[in-house]
Amino acid sequence: MPYIRIEITREGVTQEQKKQLIAGATELMVRVLDKDPATTFVVIDEVDLDNWGVGGRPVVEWRREQAEARSG
Amino acid sequence: MPYIRIEITREGVTQEQKKQLIAGATELMVRVLDKDPATTFVVIDEVDLDNWGVGGRPVVEWRREQAEARSG
Amino acid sequence: MPYIRIEITREGVTQEQKKQLIAGATELMVRVLDKDPATTFVVIDEVDLDNWGVGGRPVVEWRREQAEARSG
Amino acid sequence: MPYIRIEITREGVTQEQKKQLIAGATELMVRVLDKDPATTFVVIDEVDLDNWGVGGRPVVEWRREQAEARSG
Amino acid sequence: MPYIRIEITREGVTQEQKKQLIAGATELMVRVLDKDPATTFVVIDEVDLDNWGVGGRPVVEWRREQAEARSG
Amino acid sequence: MPYIRIEITREGVTQEQKKQLIAGATELMVRVLDKDPATTFVVIDEVDLDNWGVGGRPVVEWRREQAEARSG
Repeated sequence: MPYIRIEITREGVTQEQKKQLIAGATELMVRVLDKDPATTFVVIDEVDLDNWGVGGRPVVEWRREQAEARSG
Repeated sequence: MPYIRIEITREGVTQEQKKQLIAGATELMVRVLDKDPATTFVVIDEVDLDNWGVGGRPVVEWRREQAEARSG
Repeated sequence: MPYIRIEITREGVTQEQKKQLIAGATELMVRVLDKDPATTFVVIDEVDLDNWGVGGRPVVEWRREQAEARSG
Repeated sequence: MPYIRIEITREGVTQEQKKQLIAGATELMVRVLDKDPATTFVVIDEVDLDNWGVGGRPVVEWRREQAEARSG
Repeated sequence: MPYIRIEITREGVTQEQKKQLIAGATELMVRVLDKDPATTFVVIDEVDLDNWGVGGRPVVEWRREQAEARSG
Repeated sequence: MPYIRIEITREGVTQEQKKQLIAGATELMVRVLDKDPATTFVVIDEVDLDNWGVGGRPVVEWRREQAEARSG
């Protein structure tokens, strides 16, 4: 009876994509661990961009810097 | 100093019900583990229906199929 | 289909106490929210004392200071 | 930069199975959301059987009852 | 590659404060554990006041009682 | 009343380092958000190396490849 929590930035993830995440994570549990889908939970947590940090700064700033470094 | 996280689908849970969840979870810690309520946290996380999966599909689809199977 | 996570310090919680936590948390979901026990998960996370902090220090130090302050 | 947490019961999951869970969860993020694997974290949390409840009792008891109900 | 989750009540935390939380938590990982900021995630989870309990009741009630007890 | 969860790989983190993580995370809440240390929890979750993935593979493999790429 797995519980899978998927935390991602909130950036327009569609209902169809959420369905694919739920289906894919569940299939993974069935295929690798022979778990029962009926007792497999998948929870998607969409996190506002301001609330996600990487590299010591908000993700939007960090992405901009990474892009500049590459193009620089 | 327990921390209890209650994840449920967002479906019109009332303020009164949330109070009962907080009171009940705290009492459980006091009764079973003799914990101090003053250092017992309860966090309720309401998850959008599209973001909760079970049986490999969104919970709304899964419930519909379960109902059809029973009535079928 | 609730998921409840109970985080407590690892201090000799017995198997019987764990059963009571699982039963109590599940009953709370049934009583307050009319949830189905068959799709209610309870996960107990026992955290080593060194790994839990409150008041800016490990819980063992904090408890000792609280006790001294009261007896002082 | 997704973070995926996989909580499962601790029942002899092998190193090879863990590799497959990590690879599969990461591929899912790439395929569905076009995420960068280099900033995709997967954390597997193995939970002792006594610490996982479903149906209001420890998972081992619950499985036994389900099996008896089916064979009964 | 640490993952730090900061759960706080939703009470007007500003974008600037969020930046300071992200920077501070990341610096802590670098200073104490010599971690690489590029693989350090910080996620801030703002929880509605009704959804956070302490002392067996919603945090707003609990704060009011604490204030009354002090002024009383 | 913040709750901070620090998830790191289990690699010989000392008791002294844990104390610094607890103190530092609590100070951050006081400095940035004016929170009360007495109701600030810090939980450190040490994750076995096999159970942490990045870049689609276990962290140990990923680090080796990164090192080879740099030296290569």
